[in-house]
Amino acid sequence: MLFSLGSSKANMDPALINFKVLYVLTQLCGLTMIVLVGTWIGQHFGGLGGSSNPKLEFNWHPLFMTIGFIYLYGNSILIYRGFRTTRKKTLKLTHAGIHIAAFILTVIALKTVFDSHNLASPPIPNMYSLHSWLGLSAVIVFSLQYVAGFVAFLAPGVRENYRIALMPLHIYFGLFGFVLAIASALMGLTEKAIFAVTNPPYSSLPTAGVLANVIGVLYVVFGALVVYLATEPAYKRKPIPEDTALLNSSSVNE
Amino acid sequence: MLFSLGSSKANMDPALINFKVLYVLTQLCGLTMIVLVGTWIGQHFGGLGGSSNPKLEFNWHPLFMTIGFIYLYGNSILIYRGFRTTRKKTLKLTHAGIHIAAFILTVIALKTVFDSHNLASPPIPNMYSLHSWLGLSAVIVFSLQYVAGFVAFLAPGVRENYRIALMPLHIYFGLFGFVLAIASALMGLTEKAIFAVTNPPYSSLPTAGVLANVIGVLYVVFGALVVYLATEPAYKRKPIPEDTALLNSSSVNE
Repeated sequence: MLFSLGSSKANMDPALINFKVLYVLTQLCGLTMIVLVGTWIGQHFGGLGGSSNPKLEFNWHPLFMTIGFIYLYGNSILIYRGFRTTRKKTLKLTHAGIHIAAFILTVIALKTVFDSHNLASPPIPNMYSLHSWLGLSAVIVFSLQYVAGFVAFLAPGVRENYRIALMPLHIYFGLFGFVLAIASALMGLTEKAIFAVTNPPYSSLPTAGVLANVIGVLYVVFGALVVYLATEPAYKRKPIPEDTALLNSSSVNE
Repeated sequence: MLFSLGSSKANMDPALINFKVLYVLTQLCGLTMIVLVGTWIGQHFGGLGGSSNPKLEFNWHPLFMTIGFIYLYGNSILIYRGFRTTRKKTLKLTHAGIHIAAFILTVIALKTVFDSHNLASPPIPNMYSLHSWLGLSAVIVFSLQYVAGFVAFLAPGVRENYRIALMPLHIYFGLFGFVLAIASALMGLTEKAIFAVTNPPYSSLPTAGVLANVIGVLYVVFGALVVYLATEPAYKRKPIPEDTALLNSSSVNE
């Protein structure tokens, strides 16, 4: 089972039943989104390729951004509420771990788009579009967040009163980076549809155009669900006894 | 003065000083955004025009969407926290009033883009792009929110326990529609830059291209500030005596 809300105690809270339904819906939406991006690049843009074929190398960009910078990023945000009976320390490490996986896929996705521009003949300029400006901003926000979050909450970790003060900022900028990643993805889809859905043209809404739009709608629904599940107060994870035990031992270490 | 945090009592709360600074920054960001959109269409795309010139009629679309569906929408959201010493009933009416102004500008902005497509020769297809799908979705979310909010909170108004239950949904979908409007605007800027910044091309980043990107960055900063100011618990408006007096009288009317 993907998450651990199955205990009879948790099932008695109606808010958590809603959470469970929406959490499953979020996963279905996220997985469909990944499958459709795979279908889009596979069926309409020739599939994946290496640096010997810049056009096909580009296709890693939307695929890895969707898996890493949207699906894993969103799921890492939800880990605390989705696996609420797991102890805090394990959740923190999982949160940091999924974010690292998201970061690696994002960096590969960046590498492939720069390659696909630089190796094209003639080369395509880099970093001119609003998509690139805001997309790179989202990556920078994500990276700064990772470093700040790691230092403040994981290792070495700052004093508890600072952690409490920093947490709202960590949450705000985490969600901001996530929403900015989705907005950037929507601009990326728009660019790709205009540049590459040309015969028949995007404006006549051929299958490749409809697919682009449906993927965009799924990005929005996935993002809206993640933000809702992560911010609704009724779904907040409550501390469990194991958390406190760990907190005390970490206080001793300080 | 634009807002009424000037009382000596309010000045003593440091959170409200932060609010005040960020609120002013939000206004400066929003007004700059509007001026730059005006400059963009005025200097680079021939300014505004009527239905006899579809290309110029189009230019009302980004201008009125920016003023109505972004700037006024955002400010209407902030009205409760920005004018916290004004009594609740007045704030509700102002909130509904600014939203109506935003809605009217949005409808005109929609009319001009459909005109600019239908009256062009040859006509440009409508509603094919992801921008149009998500933009129209944002307008529909906004409209449903308006009707639901009006009926629940203004006239006739539902019972207080229902109002309390509905408020989190009203806030969530209000912010969702606002963020979706901004995401749609970013896609609109991307489309316009690709289609209309052609000589020299967008990819060489001429002034019109840089301007498009800067406007996009301002949309994001404006949106991020509005969402932060509207959701940070420390900035929440606290009830004032006048609110309670009105609440009692409305309870009598029920």
